[in-house]
Amino acid sequence: MNVLLVYAHPEPRSLNGAIRDFAVQRLRDAGHQVQVSDLYAMQWKAQLDGADTKAQPGNAPFHPSLDSKHAFENGLQSDDIAHEQEKLRWADAVILQFPLWWFSMPAILKGWVERVYAYGFAYGVGEHSDERWGDRYGEGSLAGKRAMLIVTTGGWESHYSPRGINGPIDDILFPIHHGILYYPGSDVLPPYLVYRTSKVDEARFAGIREELGQRLDMLGTTAPIPFRRQNAGDYRIPQLTLREEVEPGAVGFAAHVQ
Amino acid sequence: MNVLLVYAHPEPRSLNGAIRDFAVQRLRDAGHQVQVSDLYAMQWKAQLDGADTKAQPGNAPFHPSLDSKHAFENGLQSDDIAHEQEKLRWADAVILQFPLWWFSMPAILKGWVERVYAYGFAYGVGEHSDERWGDRYGEGSLAGKRAMLIVTTGGWESHYSPRGINGPIDDILFPIHHGILYYPGSDVLPPYLVYRTSKVDEARFAGIREELGQRLDMLGTTAPIPFRRQNAGDYRIPQLTLREEVEPGAVGFAAHVQ
Repeated sequence: MNVLLVYAHPEPRSLNGAIRDFAVQRLRDAGHQVQVSDLYAMQWKAQLDGADTKAQPGNAPFHPSLDSKHAFENGLQSDDIAHEQEKLRWADAVILQFPLWWFSMPAILKGWVERVYAYGFAYGVGEHSDERWGDRYGEGSLAGKRAMLIVTTGGWESHYSPRGINGPIDDILFPIHHGILYYPGSDVLPPYLVYRTSKVDEARFAGIREELGQRLDMLGTTAPIPFRRQNAGDYRIPQLTLREEVEPGAVGFAAHVQ
Repeated sequence: MNVLLVYAHPEPRSLNGAIRDFAVQRLRDAGHQVQVSDLYAMQWKAQLDGADTKAQPGNAPFHPSLDSKHAFENGLQSDDIAHEQEKLRWADAVILQFPLWWFSMPAILKGWVERVYAYGFAYGVGEHSDERWGDRYGEGSLAGKRAMLIVTTGGWESHYSPRGINGPIDDILFPIHHGILYYPGSDVLPPYLVYRTSKVDEARFAGIREELGQRLDMLGTTAPIPFRRQNAGDYRIPQLTLREEVEPGAVGFAAHVQ
């Protein structure tokens, strides 16, 4: 497979750096082609703004989605954006690796999503009408690809458990799994998590190599999280609420998993 | 009151720009002191990295939290970070205003949180032991202050309803409300939300002025979201899970609201 690893940590000599190096080697040893987008090393521009299009600025106000659409459709995207889109098209599997900072991805990776996920590429794809609300949530430009998170946290596993104070890790990651990876069509695999990073010693790192190695060996075969497809009948359109007969009374993120 | 408005939108001639201008005027007319951190206009540096400290780089790897701690304790933080911390200390109320991009805040604002929320300022505050897990989740440097989000979305309100496909807006915002605002001690007010931004015409904007104006008039009196305090008895320490007798069987984000 072709695997794209998008990596967001400022220090190569870190736990994340060691995990990244291990993952790349393991994938290559298994015969996969691997590209790494090392966002800090690339000095990735994090903020979405008018410089993301090569279109001549007119007098009209900058509009994040409409200017993105125009640039995407007319080959006027800035080169760094177009290059990352090429990598996504090339990839059969995409891995996002990052430390959980303030209960989400680092800003530099969020900015990669915002800028690379152009209108027409990752959203605004397909027919939008009263009967169909675009190709998204299970359909779209990244359909048929696999995606997986590798996430480290300083906090303990219990802090992220179903009754833990930070909230359950599945709910914290839902906006990324469902809203960023599944939205443009990817099949999303369960994440690989490393908790309590300050206590990772050689013995624990050996365990990480073992566990993560197995996950990477099964990258092509692990069953994805069974999110509900938007356009397969479970949702009313255009309200996009679950039909009454689908898990009656269920609310919240978990209701969108079959 | 002293009010800090942290604003993240690249175009002043936008709906967000108009809302920002209205909010600042309304607050000033009511006699409040207002400062605005306009992150795009300030060209705020979004990515957290080794340039955030003035300490002489040694041979040790950059460590996001330990280097932050050292810089904070020794007056070695970069000036932009220290300046924003001063604004937070000055403020009685903090408003974060942003468009919801990919189900979270824009990267530039996420980077404001990551860099301004230094170790010793917003986390790593207070005694950490088997009996007390720091001053956080209801206690901390920002205790006694009020905080509120103003958020715009392109999607419809129904898409963010309890059974809407994007997930309930309260759950989408929980990592910000609870994990970013309540964590260092602020009282968090219910958010002010504007849905389906592409359909805001003059009539709807008049309604926004009316509703948001009332919310701003009540900034000092609106009841905050009653999140559970970490150190007030509801949680086991250091596991930080809800005690068995607290809402038995409840799981997920909502269990942390009384």
